[in-house]
Formats: sequence, structure tokens, C-alpha cells
Amino acid sequence: MDDENKRLLLDPVRVLREDPNTKMIAIHAKQRSSSGDDENTHLHDAVVIFEKKPFSENQVFKLLKNDAIKLTNNLMNNDVYSIHLAVAEQANDDLNALQLTVIQPASEQHIQKWSEEERCMVSETADDYRSITLQYIEKHKLSLQWVQNVLDGTAESERIVCNDPDPDIGFILAPSLRWDGKDVNQLYLTAICRRQNLKSLRDLRAEHLPMLQNIWTKSTVTIEERYGVPVNRLCIFFHYQPTYYHLHIHFTHLRETTAGTAVGRAHLYADVVDNLRSDSDYYAKRTMHFSLRNNDPLLHQLLSKEKQTMTKQEE
Amino acid sequence: MDDENKRLLLDPVRVLREDPNTKMIAIHAKQRSSSGDDENTHLHDAVVIFEKKPFSENQVFKLLKNDAIKLTNNLMNNDVYSIHLAVAEQANDDLNALQLTVIQPASEQHIQKWSEEERCMVSETADDYRSITLQYIEKHKLSLQWVQNVLDGTAESERIVCNDPDPDIGFILAPSLRWDGKDVNQLYLTAICRRQNLKSLRDLRAEHLPMLQNIWTKSTVTIEERYGVPVNRLCIFFHYQPTYYHLHIHFTHLRETTAGTAVGRAHLYADVVDNLRSDSDYYAKRTMHFSLRNNDPLLHQLLSKEKQTMTKQEE
Repeated sequence: MDDENKRLLLDPVRVLREDPNTKMIAIHAKQRSSSGDDENTHLHDAVVIFEKKPFSENQVFKLLKNDAIKLTNNLMNNDVYSIHLAVAEQANDDLNALQLTVIQPASEQHIQKWSEEERCMVSETADDYRSITLQYIEKHKLSLQWVQNVLDGTAESERIVCNDPDPDIGFILAPSLRWDGKDVNQLYLTAICRRQNLKSLRDLRAEHLPMLQNIWTKSTVTIEERYGVPVNRLCIFFHYQPTYYHLHIHFTHLRETTAGTAVGRAHLYADVVDNLRSDSDYYAKRTMHFSLRNNDPLLHQLLSKEKQTMTKQEE
Repeated sequence: MDDENKRLLLDPVRVLREDPNTKMIAIHAKQRSSSGDDENTHLHDAVVIFEKKPFSENQVFKLLKNDAIKLTNNLMNNDVYSIHLAVAEQANDDLNALQLTVIQPASEQHIQKWSEEERCMVSETADDYRSITLQYIEKHKLSLQWVQNVLDGTAESERIVCNDPDPDIGFILAPSLRWDGKDVNQLYLTAICRRQNLKSLRDLRAEHLPMLQNIWTKSTVTIEERYGVPVNRLCIFFHYQPTYYHLHIHFTHLRETTAGTAVGRAHLYADVVDNLRSDSDYYAKRTMHFSLRNNDPLLHQLLSKEKQTMTKQEE
């Protein structure tokens, strides 16, 4: 699939999101009009995501051996440490290659999705869960059909690596769509329980411990046998709030840092089990603290409740 | 400080660490002998860390406007989405600049520090804490002089942004050395309590709640006034195990993702307060689950205990 001579022909509008850590920038752009005189022509929107490629051992070893790295600017010297800017002198498209993801035509939703989304910390008491969050979840119930399809085997059945059909303690385990299934350092699988009516961590009680133990044991054995990653190299956790409200557990390699393992959203499996053992109602009674995106409707409902409470206290 | 015409003159030995997410690679290298005939000359070790530079709005807008992005390879097409490899046709050293950190001569410790360190999950019961971890901490007590210097005002006093001298509930707040103090999206400050003998989360009891509340209130007010970041944009957490055993609290921007906020090490301030309120001895009794580096002596002591326990159970 060659792009030879292909051009983007896009005019930049604004930066949607920028991540200096991962060297990524997402741009909102407009399709360029081909001639100068049709300025009023409607032009499609596009989103272009620029990423830099990771280094490879080959590239860097070749550059060092060929003495092809020219230091252009010394930024710091201190004892044995120095920091420099440099360029590779050899034409090495591989090293300087950019990866572009283009969404064209882009809808308002695409632009929204790629826009910088500030997150906000919020608290949810047990009362808030019942009076606000539960109603919010009920409204979004329809979107769980895909989970049912996976559990029924009518979709993605070729991706399942462990399948326990027991209706009480059973589950399916499959690699996340985010993981290519190759580099075990980026390992990411999800176990989805077969039991219905467990929406999230909030619904877990001591009676569910045998199910959790079953998922944990069979999943970690499968992951070690299939991918060679032992249990003590895994981060095993729940999300709260989860992305979808059918109980599931995340299994990632400890090295995989982009998988949503941040405290305030991730809850370690081992902690959850300890908490349920010491108090079956731990997650029923608990105030949960987590961050949500600014444009999340649930955030606004929980925040407006907080404001009401504060106003009442001030009165 | 120009490096004009400067070369590295290093031969690659092996890759020490690689991070495809952040586009970083660290190489162990040897100083090159200047002539071919002194092969037996002792050559110094070096560590070279290669990083790619983040994109800037200027760079990317200029490339789009000038039509200077050549798509070289189409990797995927699906509906409105496509993924391409691309190169910038204009000479743009800025875009392709590499940042190199050179440590030369590098000691064995430098090489060790930059080597890939696999992490391992481990559990510490309350008994383990008393019989293993506490002894381990006592051995490392000497290394806390720097904290005392900061608290006494004999070091880093110019960096302190909030100082409460109260011996019971007082603390100092200062930007982390990892943060440049400019980009608030990467905001990172640490509050160190004045009270002695609080080594970590493990030592916290309900009686310390007024101190925690005092640190939280004054720190969040200072951060909002000084940096304009409101409390609900902050991730406020403890580390367990911490890097040093004098109680401190981390304040980071929710967007800052490289600050050790992963579950299994980070404990949300709000959760800690809730746990202490419901049970003063929560952290005294608790089994803590966390990951440690493979070469951490504490890991080996906790693991050999686990093996002994398992052997006993099997007997």
C-alpha cells in the first residue's frame, strides 16, 4: 500500500492535544481548496495525529558505528554528565519517519474525541451512587450488547484465550484491542465475568470472592502458559468508573505504563479482595474518589450535587 | 555552548533500556580507541540516552502550510481512518533533532541505574513489616540527613513555597527536582511533614488526621494561588514503599502521567483519610501490595519469606 507522491493538502486550524512525554500532537485541519477562487466552498474537516517512531537498536548502533551523529548544541555540562542536541548526518528516513493517523472527513465527534480533555477529581458517596450514578448507568444500558456478543461467542470468538462457561464463576479472557498480542512488555488482557448484574466494583460483595479467585487463577495460569509472563510481573486491577458497566478485570504487564493504572481510577485486585474479606459491604458503603473528563455528563451531575451540599452547609 | 563538529566517538555495546512509549533508548558504549593498534588499551565506559524531541505547533503548522509532508507508506485504511508513514521534505533540523544525554566516564553504578529493571509484585503483611521491612529501613536511616537539612532551612530554602513551623502539624512544601516549575501541566510538588518518626503510610493513625488535613489545606491553597491549579486538577497521593522513609505527600497535575501514580505504589490521599477515619489501625494491620525493582534487597527478603511460608504449607 504505497502513498507515493501523496500529499495531505490540509490547512492547520488548531492544536487539539499535545503530549510531550509520548511525542504526539493532534491537529484539527481543513481540506485545502484546490483553486484560489472558491473560497466559499465548503471544506471538510480532518484530524491529523502526528507521532514520532520509537528508536530501534539497529538504527542507533548503525549511527554510532558510522560516526554519523553530529552534536549541534551543548545544553548542559556537569561532572560526568552532559546533554546535547544532535542530528543524524546520514539520510536515514527510518530514524526520522513520522507516523500520521488521518481522520478525514472528521465529524464534530472525532474532533471532540481528540481534543485535550482536562480531567477533574470528584467524590461519589454511597448515596451519590444510588441517587446519581446508578440512574446514569441505567440510561447507558443498551451499549452492552457487544459484551453479550463476546460472552455468547457470536463475536470475537477467535480472540478468546480462556473460556470458563460456568454461569456463576465463569468468564472469558481475551487480549485487549489495544495490544498487538506480540510484545509481552505491553501485554494487556481483559477478563469479563459471565455473571450478569455485576456492573462494577461497587456491586462486589464477599459472596463474589470465589468468582474473583476463579478468574484470577485461570487467567494468570493462561497468561503464564501462553505468553510466558508470570503473575508477579502483572498488574491486575479494576477501573472505577469503568468504561463499560459489566464487571471486568484488567491484566497488564507491570512495564506497560499507558494502560490506565493510575491511582484514583485503578484498584488493585489484591486490595479489592482484602477489602471484601474484611468487610463484605466495603464497596457498598465506600466513598469512591476518581477523575473524570470535563465533558463527562456524570462529572457534572456529581459536581452539582457537591455544590448543593456546600451551599446547604453554608446556609 | 556549541558542540560544532563534535563527535561521540563511541562504540555501542548493548541496549540498557528502551521505552517505545516515550521514544527513548539508553545504550552502553565504550570509548573508541583513536588508532587501530592499541586494541588492548583500557577504554572508558559511557552511557548514552537518546530521546526524540516533542512536536511543536510551529513546526507542524509550517509543514502543513508548505505542503512539506510526503506520505511514504500507507499502513492502514478503514472508513474515515488511515495510517501513514511520512517524512518532512524540508530540511528541518528542529523536527528531527535528537536529545542525547551522555554520561562519560560511566561507573558500574551508572550502567546499573540505566539498565532495564524488571519490577516484581510482592505482598507485605503487618508481620512482615515488623520483622523484615522495619529492620531494612533502620539500616538505611542515615540517608535522611538531606530531609533534615531541608526542614532546618540549611538546604534548598529558596525552593520552599509553603512553610508551617508547627512541630506537630507543620510541614514544608517545595517543587520536586523533577519539575522545572514552569509548565503547570507537569506540576509536581512534595510536602514533607515536620513530625519525626513517621516513616510512611504504615505509621499513620487517626491521631495524625489533623496534621494531614493541615498539609492538604495549606498546600492546595498555595498551589492554587501560586500556580493557578485548583485542587480538583490535582492528584494527591502517598507512595508505598516510598523512596525515603520520612512521611511526605505528592501533589501532581492530573495530566502528569510519569510521576509514579500507578496503583500498587500510589495511594490516594482521600482514600488514606477515609481508611484512617473508619479504622485508626487500618495501615498498621493491612497487607500492602506493591512492586519493587528486581535488584531491590527488600524484594528478596520479602520473597524469601513468601517461599518459606509456601514450603511450610506444603509440608
